[in-house]
Amino acid sequence: MRLRGRKGIREDLEQQRDLVVLDPREYKGRWAELFGNGRPIHIELGMGKGQFISGMSVKYPEANFIGMDMYDELIRRASEKVRTIWREQGAERPESVRLALGNVESLEEFFAPGEVERIYLNFSDPWPKKKHWRRRLTHPRFLDKYRALLNERGEIHFKTDSRILFEFSLNSFAACGLQMNDISLSLHEGGVNEEHVMTEYESKFVGQGMPIYRCEAIVGKAALERYHEHKMERF
Amino acid sequence: MRLRGRKGIREDLEQQRDLVVLDPREYKGRWAELFGNGRPIHIELGMGKGQFISGMSVKYPEANFIGMDMYDELIRRASEKVRTIWREQGAERPESVRLALGNVESLEEFFAPGEVERIYLNFSDPWPKKKHWRRRLTHPRFLDKYRALLNERGEIHFKTDSRILFEFSLNSFAACGLQMNDISLSLHEGGVNEEHVMTEYESKFVGQGMPIYRCEAIVGKAALERYHEHKMERF
Repeated sequence: MRLRGRKGIREDLEQQRDLVVLDPREYKGRWAELFGNGRPIHIELGMGKGQFISGMSVKYPEANFIGMDMYDELIRRASEKVRTIWREQGAERPESVRLALGNVESLEEFFAPGEVERIYLNFSDPWPKKKHWRRRLTHPRFLDKYRALLNERGEIHFKTDSRILFEFSLNSFAACGLQMNDISLSLHEGGVNEEHVMTEYESKFVGQGMPIYRCEAIVGKAALERYHEHKMERF
Repeated sequence: MRLRGRKGIREDLEQQRDLVVLDPREYKGRWAELFGNGRPIHIELGMGKGQFISGMSVKYPEANFIGMDMYDELIRRASEKVRTIWREQGAERPESVRLALGNVESLEEFFAPGEVERIYLNFSDPWPKKKHWRRRLTHPRFLDKYRALLNERGEIHFKTDSRILFEFSLNSFAACGLQMNDISLSLHEGGVNEEHVMTEYESKFVGQGMPIYRCEAIVGKAALERYHEHKMERF
């Protein structure tokens, strides 16, 4: 795919006010107003090309989805993906989706406390060098940021193909006292798990037979109560 | 190795009162008396051929070690291993080791509450069929038993080569509210981790390049405090 120049990208995004948010600071505390309803808000941090957020938004109309990325080029590609998938469903406007340009470092400037119900982290950069571990999106300093935004049903859903990042993340969730749930060391073992919408990376890796690691971390009080009610069912 | 008949085994074990305990019920609440000192007691459940417990006992003279297994044949083989390793160290009698014949199902009949400081579970049977999951040594019903025996510095140290069992165990530790520490999805990645004494299985699997999974679960109050003091050091 040939990419347009950077200037062209920004102009393109400015034309897509129905889907793209170029400055998410504008909507801090007002996302429900933007969506025009009080449905729970799920955000994906580092959305990439948008396959996951597109698929989730058509599969789960009962939630609003915000895909966030720091690269405008990826926002543009994701916008095409979202529109294509919604058109395939016969819908004109992807009303329950927004794509927001922003850096996770500034997350607290984009959302008010309790404004978000679920955070998806999919195939985040593993940052292998120790001096870069602070940049890993499951580092304790990010988990603290997430906790501040999540509501009482709040959860973090994390998946990756990186064993190194997954190991780090489990230890980070544990250190931050987050209740873990549904830890999986091979998500699609014995056939693709249809319950979970796949990302671009994931489709590729699963096709190559590589394991996908997944875990939920439960943050909100009501979500914790629900977890404790049902936790013994799996054993 | 040719094995002697069952009768021969039992007679052999009865001759080894300095090392072998045929009925651990006799020492419930009196293990410190048996060892003749107040050092912390570490037990391995399902000790197998005894390589781990032998190695640990010569490496850590500051603790007492009890290897438990339900098969008398394994107790006999482990007794040979322990004596050989202690002789190699120039010691006459393996004074800080006992090998106990017993079934983990009856664990509470062998130890009084608070009598144990650490439980090792190494390469436990993965019991793959769902109807047998209750037999997995990291099933919540066993974790409850362990919790009852462990003292305020109590920890469970678990390792396995079975991805399926490890995944199950992480979820079980989480469900039982145990604080996890030092989760590793490939213990000997980049060279054998010398800090950890290897079992027979482990030496073989690592030699074949297979990953070893490991995790600690912290139970006792003082151990938890220590964990919280130091947990951020790794990030």
